[in-house]
Amino acid sequence: MGRMSHETRERLVRRGVEMLTEFSVGATGLDRLLRSAGVTKGSFYHFFGSKQAFTLAVIDAYEAYFEARFERILGDRQLSPVRRMRHWIDEAVRGMARHGFRRGCLVGNLSQELGPHDAVLRERLRAVFERWEGWVRQVLEEARACGELRPGADPARLATAFLTGWQGAILRAKLEGRAEPMEAFASFFLDAVTPADPPACRGAR
Amino acid sequence: MGRMSHETRERLVRRGVEMLTEFSVGATGLDRLLRSAGVTKGSFYHFFGSKQAFTLAVIDAYEAYFEARFERILGDRQLSPVRRMRHWIDEAVRGMARHGFRRGCLVGNLSQELGPHDAVLRERLRAVFERWEGWVRQVLEEARACGELRPGADPARLATAFLTGWQGAILRAKLEGRAEPMEAFASFFLDAVTPADPPACRGAR
Repeated sequence: MGRMSHETRERLVRRGVEMLTEFSVGATGLDRLLRSAGVTKGSFYHFFGSKQAFTLAVIDAYEAYFEARFERILGDRQLSPVRRMRHWIDEAVRGMARHGFRRGCLVGNLSQELGPHDAVLRERLRAVFERWEGWVRQVLEEARACGELRPGADPARLATAFLTGWQGAILRAKLEGRAEPMEAFASFFLDAVTPADPPACRGAR
Repeated sequence: MGRMSHETRERLVRRGVEMLTEFSVGATGLDRLLRSAGVTKGSFYHFFGSKQAFTLAVIDAYEAYFEARFERILGDRQLSPVRRMRHWIDEAVRGMARHGFRRGCLVGNLSQELGPHDAVLRERLRAVFERWEGWVRQVLEEARACGELRPGADPARLATAFLTGWQGAILRAKLEGRAEPMEAFASFFLDAVTPADPPACRGAR
């Protein structure tokens, strides 16, 4: 692919991420996307072949972005595991605030709208959630190992509960146009899983 | 309004509830709704005046249905407060299962799609969430009064956390086409808020 066409493809994917975090697929529409990106329908089908293929490319880009973010924040062993979770939550709130709480989670939006109606996208979206749960489970396992979780806590189960509830928190934050639902859910979760008097884990600053 | 036209209006609202719990507003579209209900565009605008007015009527019908359900289940003093919560959760899972997990929460769907873009709908959807939180807060206050909650639990805060996370649970159940995400989140929540050895509250059968 030449440099220009590579840039065109990238621009389409970037606009796809922006629009599909803010609007439904139905409200976005191919024409609107193409106008916004300044790309013809012919180019679109040249690059992607189908709308489904484009949606998959948008999910890939979103996942790659989050992979780097999980790595940077949850993999930061300068902080204790629970502090890394807190940092990740704060960054998510800042990310929503940066766009006036109009953009939600692309994976949540597409799950809501397309998940039940497109088997290929459903499997892809499930795989993203599993990947994210793996990150959270990993950091909660580290938390358990150094006593930052309540006795008997199950990191895998907690990771699922957190990321499940977190989608609701993003939805409510988007509806209300403010951070409170994310803060409230995150505080509930962290209070529920950590002991009253947590130990000083390695990196606990 | 005559009997026939009343029935036509009711049919439109009922089809609206069915379609908007399953599909996005964009994917539903007015033409599809009208075809499905066997109603002309002229009749639609005669009854509702605008799409927004129709959406508000659909929300009203959905809220009335849930009001009766909250009253019946959370108001049932034959059961202890936490058992009423459990019963409400089980009924919600059954309701999703009845439609093969294809239909989610109308209020959640509309929040995701329209909340940030329509101030009137946003306020209406927020009001429904507040009303629902009132029901859950009430039952959690009763739970606290008879010792079914952990010491220090705040019913208002827990009600918000539960209904926020619950939207995520419904979204994931719809994506995965199965009950597990709802069960997992509900168990996490109830385990987190109840003491290890709960007392026998009045009606605790």
